[in-house]
Amino acid sequence: MENRLDLDALHELIEAKDYRRIKKEISDMYPADIAWLLGDMDAKNMILVFRLIPKEEAAETFSYLDFDSQEIIVNAVTDNELSAIMDELYVDDAVDLIEELPAGVVRRVLRCVDSSTREIINRYLKYEDDTAGTIMTSEYINLKSEMTVLEAFRYIRRKAGDSEDIYNCYVIDKNRILQGTVSIKTLILAEADDKIGDLMEDDPIYVRTGDDKEHVAGIISHYDLLTVPVVDDELRLVGIVTIDDAVEVMQEEVTEDFEIMAAMLPSEKPYLKTGVFSLAKNRIVWLLFLMVSSTITGSILSTFEEALAVIPVLVSFVPMLMGTGGNSGSQASTLIIRGMAIDEIRLRDFPKVLFKELRVGLVCGISLGIICFAGVYLLYGHNPALALTVAITIALTVLMAKCLGCVMPMAAKAVKLDPALMASALITTIVDACSLLVYFAIVNLILL
Amino acid sequence: MENRLDLDALHELIEAKDYRRIKKEISDMYPADIAWLLGDMDAKNMILVFRLIPKEEAAETFSYLDFDSQEIIVNAVTDNELSAIMDELYVDDAVDLIEELPAGVVRRVLRCVDSSTREIINRYLKYEDDTAGTIMTSEYINLKSEMTVLEAFRYIRRKAGDSEDIYNCYVIDKNRILQGTVSIKTLILAEADDKIGDLMEDDPIYVRTGDDKEHVAGIISHYDLLTVPVVDDELRLVGIVTIDDAVEVMQEEVTEDFEIMAAMLPSEKPYLKTGVFSLAKNRIVWLLFLMVSSTITGSILSTFEEALAVIPVLVSFVPMLMGTGGNSGSQASTLIIRGMAIDEIRLRDFPKVLFKELRVGLVCGISLGIICFAGVYLLYGHNPALALTVAITIALTVLMAKCLGCVMPMAAKAVKLDPALMASALITTIVDACSLLVYFAIVNLILL
Repeated sequence: MENRLDLDALHELIEAKDYRRIKKEISDMYPADIAWLLGDMDAKNMILVFRLIPKEEAAETFSYLDFDSQEIIVNAVTDNELSAIMDELYVDDAVDLIEELPAGVVRRVLRCVDSSTREIINRYLKYEDDTAGTIMTSEYINLKSEMTVLEAFRYIRRKAGDSEDIYNCYVIDKNRILQGTVSIKTLILAEADDKIGDLMEDDPIYVRTGDDKEHVAGIISHYDLLTVPVVDDELRLVGIVTIDDAVEVMQEEVTEDFEIMAAMLPSEKPYLKTGVFSLAKNRIVWLLFLMVSSTITGSILSTFEEALAVIPVLVSFVPMLMGTGGNSGSQASTLIIRGMAIDEIRLRDFPKVLFKELRVGLVCGISLGIICFAGVYLLYGHNPALALTVAITIALTVLMAKCLGCVMPMAAKAVKLDPALMASALITTIVDACSLLVYFAIVNLILL
Repeated sequence: MENRLDLDALHELIEAKDYRRIKKEISDMYPADIAWLLGDMDAKNMILVFRLIPKEEAAETFSYLDFDSQEIIVNAVTDNELSAIMDELYVDDAVDLIEELPAGVVRRVLRCVDSSTREIINRYLKYEDDTAGTIMTSEYINLKSEMTVLEAFRYIRRKAGDSEDIYNCYVIDKNRILQGTVSIKTLILAEADDKIGDLMEDDPIYVRTGDDKEHVAGIISHYDLLTVPVVDDELRLVGIVTIDDAVEVMQEEVTEDFEIMAAMLPSEKPYLKTGVFSLAKNRIVWLLFLMVSSTITGSILSTFEEALAVIPVLVSFVPMLMGTGGNSGSQASTLIIRGMAIDEIRLRDFPKVLFKELRVGLVCGISLGIICFAGVYLLYGHNPALALTVAITIALTVLMAKCLGCVMPMAAKAVKLDPALMASALITTIVDACSLLVYFAIVNLILL
């Protein structure tokens, strides 16, 4: 596991045209690591090195590459090489690739796969975006309930080479209707003449082709599964989803939450592959909305021109009040949004959460208020009334921000909106306006 | 899979003391679902229902419960029942539980497990926090290289019942040094008299007991593994980490990123289980730091009292400028931080990223500037100079915020700080100050 070839060393070998050495080094590496190196190379070198990968590892390495690199390879290899790669790829990876390729290239790829694979790929391409159908694979072991364990093992030996997962087998009847699942572990522990029908779990967990892929990932994680079978509307088994694809879905889901919480429209593509204009478009919508909303805060500020004219120093506390309010609100909303995303916090916990945030808000608000009082008193001419005004405002702002920070995401969830929408940017904008209102109310009460 | 018992129905059955019905319903459910229901019940009902779970499913259900519920159960059951549960638990789950229990309860739990398990548990408890040692399990299959496939299968049949993962077997020599791994798939495809030593992958991927658990999760995800072996300093095999634990680590890591990005100290405990004071403590540190930092913005604002006195309307644009700047900065930094967390963006991509953000900043800045010009011109007395001032400021602020938003997280990573620190809260505070400086510079240039 130590001393793997790194990018610089590889480039030096290419420079020196020492292809034999590259071939040797690469044959000692794991496909995931080779793909990692290839992803960082320019097209010319990538193709060169890809051709040096031992044949039996080329397809696996290919499956670890990102789509752009895959496209470069597809365009560079001969039809024969392409056939070899496509035959080795699992159907879900092949379908993912085809969905990303330009139409002209897709035609060539489909020409290079054998007709049964082509048929499966075409069927998969018809599933709607983001459904179980798009992330499932068709390489699995299906058994019949009347088989014995010995017959099952013979069948598995014949099929194992082509299957992505052989550790769970799926029992289907003659109409391909899913009847149950049986794990290899059960088969190993059973006797040779036991019947599959007697061994199988006959109330298996399954999902449907049209189920949202996030639901599928949730099922896999909730039941701690390695795979879950996918059935069509007639309950016929059409594929399985494996845990690695579920993990990928979870990661995408998290990225989407991050994007929404930072006030962007979520994007399917990785950052470096997204064009400048689509990045800008994803961001402008929310920036514009928040910019317009913040003019409300601006007009609140300008209605208090009079107070600001009488006591000009008041304006210098505005950024601190707004900033602290916004930060307090985002802290609360982030915890609540994340808690709901991983099902730690449920809607019925609302009273508990609100009561907790009220108390946290009090502790934080009072602590910051005291510090603020001392700071303002010492730095702004020993004026206790001014110090008190700022201190009370900060305490109330923090308290209010904490409450809004938990109420808003939970309210969003209650009306079936994405709670992630209620994250820092929106909360900040609302808290900003509220904190100014509180500020000037207290200024009026104490100072004017 | 349909029509599972829900919480209300269960409470009704408890109310009606219809325990036979509860027992029947529960025996049809998956342990993960029973645990989900139990987690929402009060202690008395939880214990009552737990006792109705079929014996063979009690331990598995127990392993799905959160620590608080586990503690309630541990305290309620007899020593015999406790022994039965502990014997069925996998060592990693048992260790996790013991780490959360109060010392008195731990003594009772350890008394109830058999002595060999006790020894393993005690060894596991010594590993440092957050290392591979704390998330590994000791239930795996180890083979010898001189075994034949037939012998291996016989051995696996004897051991499979106690093993969390049987799909990868680990080959060790007489000193327990890890020599290789072999999958059940390979064994099934092999001939009965093939030697394990000839079949095994002899350069296996492994981790060490002291490796950070995030590194372990990274290895599992990078190589698409279901398990990874854990070795000690002498390369002796001491355990394995399974993918479900790796997924949990990834989720914790994401939660930690969310917390840091929202300017909180990360917490190990779930939100609802964290006390008010530790929640407050985790938040106050950053709130205080950011509050003090934002006084800089305040003092910048107050140095421009003069300009604000001459043209009072200027102050009403301050929230919009600061808000838009902060939002633009968080958008960029969030994408970069997340991109680096999932290894999509690497440090050497910095020039690409900066160039991209520059262009995105230009597109967003100019668009918002134009809209801003029109808005201010129409709403604030058809004053083109004022509109131009605000428009130019907003364009420059957005551009600057986008650049800071990508430079700061990448700079943090370069000096080995956590990039998540450079998220919205800190970026916003810095961008706030800068945007005011830009604002008043342009005011001076155009309006005064």
